Amino acid sequence: MTDKLWGGRFTAKAAEWVDKFGASISFDQQMAKEDLTASIAHVKMLGKQNIIPAKDAKTIEDGLNVLMQRLEAGELHFTVENEDIHLNMESLLTDLIGPVAGKLHTARSRNDQVATDFHLWLKNRLPEIKEAITNLQTVLVEKAEENAGTIMPGYTHMQHAQPITYGHYLLAYFEMLQRDYERFEFNQKHTDMLPLGAAALAGTTFPIDREYVADELGFDEVYHNSLDAVSDRDFALEFLSNAALLMEHLSRLAEELILWCTYDFNYIEMDDRFATGSSIMPQKKNADFAELVRGKTGRVYGALMGLLTTMKSLPLAYNKDMQEDKEPVFDTYNTILGSLHIFAGMLESVKVHKEKMHDATINDFSNATELADYLATKGVPFRTAHGIVGKLVLHGIKTHQSLQDMPLSELQEAAPQIQEDVYQELTSEAAVERRTSLGGTAVTNVNKEVARAKAIIKTHQ
Amino acid sequence: MTDKLWGGRFTAKAAEWVDKFGASISFDQQMAKEDLTASIAHVKMLGKQNIIPAKDAKTIEDGLNVLMQRLEAGELHFTVENEDIHLNMESLLTDLIGPVAGKLHTARSRNDQVATDFHLWLKNRLPEIKEAITNLQTVLVEKAEENAGTIMPGYTHMQHAQPITYGHYLLAYFEMLQRDYERFEFNQKHTDMLPLGAAALAGTTFPIDREYVADELGFDEVYHNSLDAVSDRDFALEFLSNAALLMEHLSRLAEELILWCTYDFNYIEMDDRFATGSSIMPQKKNADFAELVRGKTGRVYGALMGLLTTMKSLPLAYNKDMQEDKEPVFDTYNTILGSLHIFAGMLESVKVHKEKMHDATINDFSNATELADYLATKGVPFRTAHGIVGKLVLHGIKTHQSLQDMPLSELQEAAPQIQEDVYQELTSEAAVERRTSLGGTAVTNVNKEVARAKAIIKTHQ
Amino acid sequence: MTDKLWGGRFTAKAAEWVDKFGASISFDQQMAKEDLTASIAHVKMLGKQNIIPAKDAKTIEDGLNVLMQRLEAGELHFTVENEDIHLNMESLLTDLIGPVAGKLHTARSRNDQVATDFHLWLKNRLPEIKEAITNLQTVLVEKAEENAGTIMPGYTHMQHAQPITYGHYLLAYFEMLQRDYERFEFNQKHTDMLPLGAAALAGTTFPIDREYVADELGFDEVYHNSLDAVSDRDFALEFLSNAALLMEHLSRLAEELILWCTYDFNYIEMDDRFATGSSIMPQKKNADFAELVRGKTGRVYGALMGLLTTMKSLPLAYNKDMQEDKEPVFDTYNTILGSLHIFAGMLESVKVHKEKMHDATINDFSNATELADYLATKGVPFRTAHGIVGKLVLHGIKTHQSLQDMPLSELQEAAPQIQEDVYQELTSEAAVERRTSLGGTAVTNVNKEVARAKAIIKTHQ
Amino acid sequence: MTDKLWGGRFTAKAAEWVDKFGASISFDQQMAKEDLTASIAHVKMLGKQNIIPAKDAKTIEDGLNVLMQRLEAGELHFTVENEDIHLNMESLLTDLIGPVAGKLHTARSRNDQVATDFHLWLKNRLPEIKEAITNLQTVLVEKAEENAGTIMPGYTHMQHAQPITYGHYLLAYFEMLQRDYERFEFNQKHTDMLPLGAAALAGTTFPIDREYVADELGFDEVYHNSLDAVSDRDFALEFLSNAALLMEHLSRLAEELILWCTYDFNYIEMDDRFATGSSIMPQKKNADFAELVRGKTGRVYGALMGLLTTMKSLPLAYNKDMQEDKEPVFDTYNTILGSLHIFAGMLESVKVHKEKMHDATINDFSNATELADYLATKGVPFRTAHGIVGKLVLHGIKTHQSLQDMPLSELQEAAPQIQEDVYQELTSEAAVERRTSLGGTAVTNVNKEVARAKAIIKTHQ
Repeated sequence: MTDKLWGGRFTAKAAEWVDKFGASISFDQQMAKEDLTASIAHVKMLGKQNIIPAKDAKTIEDGLNVLMQRLEAGELHFTVENEDIHLNMESLLTDLIGPVAGKLHTARSRNDQVATDFHLWLKNRLPEIKEAITNLQTVLVEKAEENAGTIMPGYTHMQHAQPITYGHYLLAYFEMLQRDYERFEFNQKHTDMLPLGAAALAGTTFPIDREYVADELGFDEVYHNSLDAVSDRDFALEFLSNAALLMEHLSRLAEELILWCTYDFNYIEMDDRFATGSSIMPQKKNADFAELVRGKTGRVYGALMGLLTTMKSLPLAYNKDMQEDKEPVFDTYNTILGSLHIFAGMLESVKVHKEKMHDATINDFSNATELADYLATKGVPFRTAHGIVGKLVLHGIKTHQSLQDMPLSELQEAAPQIQEDVYQELTSEAAVERRTSLGGTAVTNVNKEVARAKAIIKTHQ
Repeated sequence: MTDKLWGGRFTAKAAEWVDKFGASISFDQQMAKEDLTASIAHVKMLGKQNIIPAKDAKTIEDGLNVLMQRLEAGELHFTVENEDIHLNMESLLTDLIGPVAGKLHTARSRNDQVATDFHLWLKNRLPEIKEAITNLQTVLVEKAEENAGTIMPGYTHMQHAQPITYGHYLLAYFEMLQRDYERFEFNQKHTDMLPLGAAALAGTTFPIDREYVADELGFDEVYHNSLDAVSDRDFALEFLSNAALLMEHLSRLAEELILWCTYDFNYIEMDDRFATGSSIMPQKKNADFAELVRGKTGRVYGALMGLLTTMKSLPLAYNKDMQEDKEPVFDTYNTILGSLHIFAGMLESVKVHKEKMHDATINDFSNATELADYLATKGVPFRTAHGIVGKLVLHGIKTHQSLQDMPLSELQEAAPQIQEDVYQELTSEAAVERRTSLGGTAVTNVNKEVARAKAIIKTHQ
Repeated sequence: MTDKLWGGRFTAKAAEWVDKFGASISFDQQMAKEDLTASIAHVKMLGKQNIIPAKDAKTIEDGLNVLMQRLEAGELHFTVENEDIHLNMESLLTDLIGPVAGKLHTARSRNDQVATDFHLWLKNRLPEIKEAITNLQTVLVEKAEENAGTIMPGYTHMQHAQPITYGHYLLAYFEMLQRDYERFEFNQKHTDMLPLGAAALAGTTFPIDREYVADELGFDEVYHNSLDAVSDRDFALEFLSNAALLMEHLSRLAEELILWCTYDFNYIEMDDRFATGSSIMPQKKNADFAELVRGKTGRVYGALMGLLTTMKSLPLAYNKDMQEDKEPVFDTYNTILGSLHIFAGMLESVKVHKEKMHDATINDFSNATELADYLATKGVPFRTAHGIVGKLVLHGIKTHQSLQDMPLSELQEAAPQIQEDVYQELTSEAAVERRTSLGGTAVTNVNKEVARAKAIIKTHQ
Repeated sequence: MTDKLWGGRFTAKAAEWVDKFGASISFDQQMAKEDLTASIAHVKMLGKQNIIPAKDAKTIEDGLNVLMQRLEAGELHFTVENEDIHLNMESLLTDLIGPVAGKLHTARSRNDQVATDFHLWLKNRLPEIKEAITNLQTVLVEKAEENAGTIMPGYTHMQHAQPITYGHYLLAYFEMLQRDYERFEFNQKHTDMLPLGAAALAGTTFPIDREYVADELGFDEVYHNSLDAVSDRDFALEFLSNAALLMEHLSRLAEELILWCTYDFNYIEMDDRFATGSSIMPQKKNADFAELVRGKTGRVYGALMGLLTTMKSLPLAYNKDMQEDKEPVFDTYNTILGSLHIFAGMLESVKVHKEKMHDATINDFSNATELADYLATKGVPFRTAHGIVGKLVLHGIKTHQSLQDMPLSELQEAAPQIQEDVYQELTSEAAVERRTSLGGTAVTNVNKEVARAKAIIKTHQ
């Protein structure tokens, strides 16, 4: 590529970039193991079908197994001259067993080979992602159980609305993650398909046995159309979409955790391992890892948008544009796996300032709804009840009293139906306790949902 | 909003925009039917549970049914003053039945109401999308059957690679659409969940029966966490992701159709209904609708990216940012439904220039692989065979002969193993016929896959 | 389009969508005025160059002026049958002046016509955007001046770091908006170019005078390549990029305003016009419009991503995909114009709780840096000083004392160099006052920057 | 970070990821030179201002110069323990000159330091990008000059529309790249600003001289607001936006180059250096590098979308999310620089099949417009002329004759005004020659625009 044939004004620089852009070994070596695994299954099939002599097949298979051992021992070295993982492996195999290595590429093409490696790579990693989601869910459930009764303000529009419990709050994220889990599970369906055998684009004239290869590699399905097999990247796009949604969820949780460990909220305190401090201001703890994960949401959204753009309007079957498919997926896998583990550790270790949380619900008039409900049960029409409470709250703001601090006489002035029993309904505890509708924040509900969540986690295999 | 209270330099303009931005009735009236349907189920439950008197419940239900009839008759008029579809409906109901209408809003909030309407809206439309996909798949299969033996060049890198059939090509898109179908089917799972009963964010103190409401509305599931119920938009993001992948597929098909009806390819001719002509150049037909759909891929990708951005870092539970959730979904629904129907009509009516397609496979040396395979079966080692064929192709280019046009003597000069029987292997027909591996382009395979595709379509309900 | 020629199973639905997708009049009528303006300039040129008889040119010009009056009076009605604004106008003109109207289209094509209208449309609106930015900047500067000395916590990682002033904070947004202003100003350069005269793609054989038309329409430049003229959408993409950056800025400001009017921060209070309340909880004010603008960031990002996608890989010159260029630009124009006006009104009217802001800086140890600086000036090596202060802060946290509340003896125990004069350095006022480096938060600096900002605003024409 | 303090079920994995996510040295070492350069300027200023003793300043400066030499010699080694480039450099400096190194960090913070490095990094690279654009423009102009008269079909909707020249076509891309050039030039304005001196967020109490530092580093401006200085990433987002538009342009050119070197078009042939072949099919050349660049458009769009997302809603001033700002910018710089160089080499070396291009304009009826124009000049009303030509084209299609091949009698039957002189107007040459309107495809125009383009290139410094 870089020889003397190059001339002209710009071609020297162009040549340099041609090499950089053309070779994919810098990133596709992450599929080294999958490349060997797929080749082993392929050559066993070639032997079984007598497409190549059984003896040759055995020699190749043994050679590939040696390469696999060396790979695992960290002893394989790849070169840019050999461009990609496939040619590197072929070259290494030839060095090892001689020209018979060339027979390995019978009845396949790089087009179906790379697709197979990529499927296999993701197929092997989806369970890891699912496990990491389950781990984080487990932490959420454990902490929800511990905090089924930990009262805190519930927010809408970032305004205190009604008291909830921290346990109830954590379970909201359990639910989101459960949908994430189900999406990655669904992702398996379109990942678990074998492209090998499609050859360059049209199938092959050799009497191959694709279903045997699928069995060997543990694939559930084979692609039923050769053009589709080499041009499909749905499984990668599904993965990136699912990752984008997952990061959306984590960014929301991150946002709240960051807010809650501010001086101004002070509901929680990050464990030192998930914060960075300042030698001069020990009270200052930056929730660096929650911020990083929130920031990495952009990286994952970008990966999705990038691959969607790359695939837009691409004619069938294979085009070199598709070399751009792997980096966003590899990078996203790392990002989400790391984010999930970090959040599990962070939530497990975070210190909850229960008293601060509870205190925040006392003077915020978040019990206004309770008083209106109280009046309604005493027979006051709802709209009227609303009006009465509205006036009482205004009165409270002016006189610096919360509803529960007002003397009964003042309350009765607004509504004679109010009796001494009102005070027991105006506590945050009562507000929480009475929300027993399915999915509501009542402690009994939270405990019930903890049990359900545990049962769901048990189904995760 | 626009009253005299406004002052200052910019507030007049600000006021104008506050009105425009604040009201959602311009678009959320598309959920008018869903809003009424959900309210009917809600009020029946309120009556059944004695949360409001049965008589009042009946009055309200009857009123809502009247509104539904008027809506269907096109007689309901909404106003910007009433901001959104929910307040408009409440106002219309009050006009109709008087203040008892106010009781309808017992034990619910706009937060869970809008989420319910939106779920219901999408739940009702996913089957339409699935049906439109099935329609397009049906056209693809019918045309594939007709063209199981229509030979055309198969491309990689937009270069002629090996002959395939048009039928085989069409089935590649059948497969893509089948995965799209499965994604929209999966989309139902997280759409088919009832948020109603979550109230503002924490559940309600009224003894509601959410499962009854779910049954009435045909929902499979209820949300088990009230915070999640009002803050979740996964179902919408799944829809947009699925739509983006679908459009990616259609953009690829569009790209090829556009190319194939150019003067330069001339493989197909668009029916007049899907093309625009020029009064002065009747031979010029622009594949306008394929281009439009390809262009609309951007719109759908943008909708996905937009909602992902909006949801990023949003604290629980409801925030006004989420008012931005509906327009991208409504617009995307229209875009994909229209695109699917247009492609069905376009592919059903497109005129296939079979002779042109076939001719294009004759002098393009796309039978070079066949000759190498022929030599291989005659015992020539594969790498050697490759070398021989490479030289013959170069010779052909220089002498303006295709492989099948070369006299036997010339062929034998390159490889004495070549015999008279070679010519029957060098036709495009033979190249296609021999690719009988599972998923390969052989006519028998295409017919087999047509049968499988029909069986799959039958499972679409 | 919808006649009986349609047959087959799906074509009826397809036909319906062909009509919906094909016609652009629903949105391109927003360029009605620009279409007439450009036609008037064009026909004057045709007359002047004797391309059409002067008399005909006059008749057409007069007709176009009549249409313009009717347009402004709201009396023009467009039909979907006439597809787009250009054909609608031609049809209306023909109705008005008869077949001579047909001569208007001499030496132009819809390709250069639509590009011209679109350029003109944006050219006319960029000044509006710039003015709205200037308005918001003006409010920021006025409020910064009022609040040059309003002390509040400065944040990094959402943690209290060092005291700043609200005025200083507002000026940060002045700077961002100034860059936005400059970007929209730069945007003019590539908008202010006339495509008309490129005809379909290759120029025209008529002796047109493009520079005359450019002068008539107030364009600075003409496109120098006809293919570029009809295929370029850079001006639109620049606009969307600039809008995305602007919304990024507003989303950051929105985020902070939303936080600061929470119960927990309580630094500001939204004017009622920019908040929505709750009848039952009068203390609860949702910063709805800040939230909406933050949410609309997604809409604008999506518009940018959408048009970038649409334009990706489009061959020259015109393709129907490009019909998708206008809606994102029109929508984005509305979004950013409205957002700017709303923020101007919002910031002008927001009530600043100066005491709350100031109080928040007292016990947050944000004066720790000051004490270290104090020690450094007394000759204590900086690292040592840091260590001493760190210990004192920890001591303060344990004993519930701020640094400024500790008795001198306690301070001296940690560092004998500390004297009575330390207390005057530990106030937030002192911390602010001492940050006089260029761009620092000192009140004198803020006042200086206010003056500079006012001077910059004066340069905005 | 990874010590025994870690416990619990997930924390071990979490710890591993905390390390990976937290450290930025893996990528920010690309700013090593900028970090040293900025530190040298900073310490000189500290000395000059007597903020630290002149002797210490000199020691530090000398030490930094030693590190710079070692860096350039490839002898500096960074460690993950030291997290980022700033701490690595401080550690290396301390190793070299002892504890006095600690004084370097006086009056600055990592917040303004990283912003300064990043500004400096981009500031140094924008000229490279501009030079690479200019290079590609130079190739385009040279080739346009060579091909001012190389006739080829001009396309709209991928249909042959009117003949143009290849030179004219290439100049369309010159224009696009000129706008790209201007955008990167504008990008300098907001890059060429010094943040240093903003310290953590609020400025510093030390008597620093920011303008001196700006001069030393060659910055045109200093940030006038400390909060803005540390939180602004506009310069990076402008860069990514500009890169996205540039890639949009290259993707269009790539698309056409790919099409034109297909078997079906065969207008050009890629030089071997920019194509990959197949040993067995020598006629098959894949335009791999055009495809790769087209594919990398997604990567760049994704980088833009990613950083826009990351910055959305971020409160001032610094947040750890912003650590995600550098990788997309570094990666995009490499992508666009390489793409520009590759395209320069590719277009310089591409072989143009002039005869094929010309032939493609002969029988495609792209001279229909010419005949209509001919009739118009003979006094036939334009609409009538259109109708006549339309019929003649249809007649030609049926009888397999092009317009120029029809006997005069047949032409006259359609329109008696047609004379023998018509044939000279029906050549592609005539069609091109007559398009002399400013920006039209006439050869004289192309030559004129070549001259203008050369003059523009001369202004690029």
